[in-house]
Amino acid sequence: MTNEEFFSGAALHAWKQVIGRFDKGLAELSDEQLQRRVSPGRNRLYYLLGHLTAVHDRLFALLDVGERLHPELDEAFITNPDGTLADPVPAAELRKAWAEVNAKLTAAFEKFTPSDWLQRHTQVSEEDFAKDPTRNRLAVLLSRTNHVSFHTGQTVLAK
Amino acid sequence: MTNEEFFSGAALHAWKQVIGRFDKGLAELSDEQLQRRVSPGRNRLYYLLGHLTAVHDRLFALLDVGERLHPELDEAFITNPDGTLADPVPAAELRKAWAEVNAKLTAAFEKFTPSDWLQRHTQVSEEDFAKDPTRNRLAVLLSRTNHVSFHTGQTVLAK
Repeated sequence: MTNEEFFSGAALHAWKQVIGRFDKGLAELSDEQLQRRVSPGRNRLYYLLGHLTAVHDRLFALLDVGERLHPELDEAFITNPDGTLADPVPAAELRKAWAEVNAKLTAAFEKFTPSDWLQRHTQVSEEDFAKDPTRNRLAVLLSRTNHVSFHTGQTVLAK
Repeated sequence: MTNEEFFSGAALHAWKQVIGRFDKGLAELSDEQLQRRVSPGRNRLYYLLGHLTAVHDRLFALLDVGERLHPELDEAFITNPDGTLADPVPAAELRKAWAEVNAKLTAAFEKFTPSDWLQRHTQVSEEDFAKDPTRNRLAVLLSRTNHVSFHTGQTVLAK
């Protein structure tokens, strides 16, 4: 393996690891328990699951790896805070969507070469990317990995 | 810049970014407010600050980048859970320790070449590292970066 392959491998490993940890907690909870809040007055676990699913679903376009699977989740889980709209899907479907989105993304990431990771993401223009080549897919991956960790820290507090 | 330099730069940027986010929240809180809990019955912010400081202080040995600064924090913030021992230092000193530890670590990391990141960490033997070269300093950096994000997600819940 080359040095750059070790780097891209480590970044992808971290992504899979934090999703694995979130999944482990999720598997221990019933659909009913997903209605618990991470703290009094704060987000429900159901909402955080939907939020992470919708945010990851948007990565298909942002990283240019195919069509997104669940655009219908954005309004309830990104545009609006918890408790604003009626729950758009049952918890069992949300679990399925979360698993499908991550499986499809991770399969695409597994095929990336190190150079693929260093290509621009689609929210930066070619011109801006020429000025700042750190605005690449890798930066998005690291950011979203930390985003999962951020919310995992919250989910472990729910009672 | 080479590809491997883009990778190591992105990993270090993520480390600095998540610490910067934690610091921003910390700066908005008084020492008294650090006594708040992230959720009823859970850790105080003071404890999480001490925990992150002690965990980062252990990175000096783990990544072989010099002597640690605050071994006295381990017992209160790693060995024991919150509320077990008397608070070992005032909040103001803990803030200072956190800033010093991160500044010294980050200064050492800034000097690392990509190859430096791919060297083994000190908790893996040369023999085991030969079998699994992903047990390197980079893996530790990514893990600790996600660890900060995990607890940052909790600190934003404190009231």
